[in-house]
Amino acid sequence: MSELITKGKKAKKAVTVLITKTTSQKNKALQHIADQLIHETPYILQENNRDIEHARENGVHESLIDRLILNESRIKEMSVALEQLAFLPDPTGNVLERFERPNGLIIEKIAVPLGVIGMIYEARPNVTVDAASLCLKTGNAVLLRGSSSAIHSNRALVSVIHHALELSDLPVDSVQLIEDTSRETATQMFKMNDYLDVLIPRGGKALIQAVVENASVPVLETGAGNCHVYIDKSADKKMAIDIVLNAKTQRPSVCNSIETVLVHEAWAKKHMKELVENLVERGVELRVDQNIHELFPAIVLASEEDWQSEYLDHILAIKTVSGTSDAIEHINRYGSKHSEAIITEAEDNVRSFFQLVDAAALYHNASTRFTDGHEFGFGAEIGISTQKLHARGPMGLPALTSSKYVIRGNGQIRE
Amino acid sequence: MSELITKGKKAKKAVTVLITKTTSQKNKALQHIADQLIHETPYILQENNRDIEHARENGVHESLIDRLILNESRIKEMSVALEQLAFLPDPTGNVLERFERPNGLIIEKIAVPLGVIGMIYEARPNVTVDAASLCLKTGNAVLLRGSSSAIHSNRALVSVIHHALELSDLPVDSVQLIEDTSRETATQMFKMNDYLDVLIPRGGKALIQAVVENASVPVLETGAGNCHVYIDKSADKKMAIDIVLNAKTQRPSVCNSIETVLVHEAWAKKHMKELVENLVERGVELRVDQNIHELFPAIVLASEEDWQSEYLDHILAIKTVSGTSDAIEHINRYGSKHSEAIITEAEDNVRSFFQLVDAAALYHNASTRFTDGHEFGFGAEIGISTQKLHARGPMGLPALTSSKYVIRGNGQIRE
Repeated sequence: MSELITKGKKAKKAVTVLITKTTSQKNKALQHIADQLIHETPYILQENNRDIEHARENGVHESLIDRLILNESRIKEMSVALEQLAFLPDPTGNVLERFERPNGLIIEKIAVPLGVIGMIYEARPNVTVDAASLCLKTGNAVLLRGSSSAIHSNRALVSVIHHALELSDLPVDSVQLIEDTSRETATQMFKMNDYLDVLIPRGGKALIQAVVENASVPVLETGAGNCHVYIDKSADKKMAIDIVLNAKTQRPSVCNSIETVLVHEAWAKKHMKELVENLVERGVELRVDQNIHELFPAIVLASEEDWQSEYLDHILAIKTVSGTSDAIEHINRYGSKHSEAIITEAEDNVRSFFQLVDAAALYHNASTRFTDGHEFGFGAEIGISTQKLHARGPMGLPALTSSKYVIRGNGQIRE
Repeated sequence: MSELITKGKKAKKAVTVLITKTTSQKNKALQHIADQLIHETPYILQENNRDIEHARENGVHESLIDRLILNESRIKEMSVALEQLAFLPDPTGNVLERFERPNGLIIEKIAVPLGVIGMIYEARPNVTVDAASLCLKTGNAVLLRGSSSAIHSNRALVSVIHHALELSDLPVDSVQLIEDTSRETATQMFKMNDYLDVLIPRGGKALIQAVVENASVPVLETGAGNCHVYIDKSADKKMAIDIVLNAKTQRPSVCNSIETVLVHEAWAKKHMKELVENLVERGVELRVDQNIHELFPAIVLASEEDWQSEYLDHILAIKTVSGTSDAIEHINRYGSKHSEAIITEAEDNVRSFFQLVDAAALYHNASTRFTDGHEFGFGAEIGISTQKLHARGPMGLPALTSSKYVIRGNGQIRE
């Protein structure tokens, strides 16, 4: 039997035990993992080092190696996050709705775990602990399929988690690592409908696309972000510039950073020079439309591709637009339905923007960088959903639950 | 350009207009459709008759023809359902959550339409009106891909809907019929991620399986039902028999009818004879396990296949079990996660059953036949979801909505 099927079966069995565990039992397990991570830090770092050496031997770029590296402070952070997670409310068991029917049936809708979650991710070993702990907190079992480049780190982390689970009341098989990191395993997981209730891909655009296009298991899509700020005619100059700088430069490599600024032509006439100067000063490379290019001939002209690009870097496209509808049209055409902002003093334009822009999070006079589970106050985040089913925007613990209806009667039959 | 792409583009455009329409404008459109259906009854029946004649010429079974037939009273029913739908609350625009962050951001989660819905269904022309009206009520555009055997009926119904939309404020392209009913069109729809936000298959198991296995567009699965009643040791004899008879015979062809009864061995010893006699008297053909077969040698022995079967007919499998855990194990192994009932006076067993059985709807001392949007008091039903993401169990209008976060600030940037 393949590793996936064997582990899938074990995971399904673990779910039937997990579901009987109390919030306090689950929290104790999280605390055990937090403790063991600290206790086993030397072992984890030693194994992580094998991955790093291997990556260096293979000439992997240092920016990718940085994502792979664990150190004492990163492990400490994981441990603290686990302790915080233990303090968050457990969404499972919550009564979401309750109603009584004229025939006397009492119907309750209860939040329940999803079941078995398949996690497919790239070379960040922190996702191993993150995914395992969020799944445990919500009573789900998880099959972790990380990258071959992090296999030693992932093995070490999962063995530490297993040891912690042995000290707790939760089944060890609640968290399992898929050792076979071949492409075929991922492809096989896409179709494991008999064992997996949901697949969560975490990583680059190519990985997510592959999962969305090929999986028959339902997917929780955590997507790419081609986000925009639209500066309306009446936008406050300083506020607009501050927000653009923040949304572009505070952390360009993340999905809620912006890639294009749309500027109302009237605002552009007055303030474009100052906006451009500020961006250039911060080391942002610009790609601009014809109008702006005429004013600043030294700046590269944007191509069609620029409007589509998620640079994830200190690069920004700028386009002038004739008004809010023009901006909305551009965003709905090129945006990735993630986070979009309008800077304006005109309430009518806010209303149209909020109604007509098709995206998970819409901002008025604020930076798109706030689209984040922690910034929203959710305490934990599984990712940011850019799909429309099940969950949209930052996903907290409730996104890892489903529901069931439980109905109590006294002999009711249907007429 | 293919019909699908052309209509997909028109649907996306219709969505941007639909979203600006008020509940009252949408309700007026529903009323217009209700009126036009009555007004155009002769035309609809004439076109429906073409489909029926064609089916008869092709030797289609009368039970299938019955699903295709429209008549005055069926059209009247559709019209009344539309009027009732107009009176139901509109879920879009509802503020689902609202919170203020310490930095002053005010975050609201608002229910919004899903966008463009692709409906793939079989030879029931009533689904055409049903799907179109539920989508309109929730501000969604819909591409309807029905069966070739109902093409004349569907064309007539959609032209009536179009005429009604012309009389209303909603865009005519909100509802479009795909004329090309080849298998290739369906397959193409599975992958139309650029134009469709969700696919809803309605029909038999094979259709639903094909969609789930092949679609990259997110799916709202309305599934098959292999449902069970478990009669526990302490079950009241009369209640148990009444519920089994109701759940099996009141309407055997629907998904919330039961296919297998599990009987505690102690209860079986006392009452099996009476249960069997009652079922046989109602014309139910039985398939039983070894224990029961020994008592009633004339009754066919059940095979492994029987536990897996959705008969949708006057056929029932019966199995004795040693207790609640045994019953739960059988259900989780063979059930389709639809509706499951326990008949018992023992509260502990109810608790285990509710906790451990993995299904959309769980009943204590009531018939599984209540799993239905109308029986749950939802007023309308899109189908019964057997998946765990987005919606589970009977789906009312809110299942046709997504959400967006709208965030109001006064210049907040992320530190």
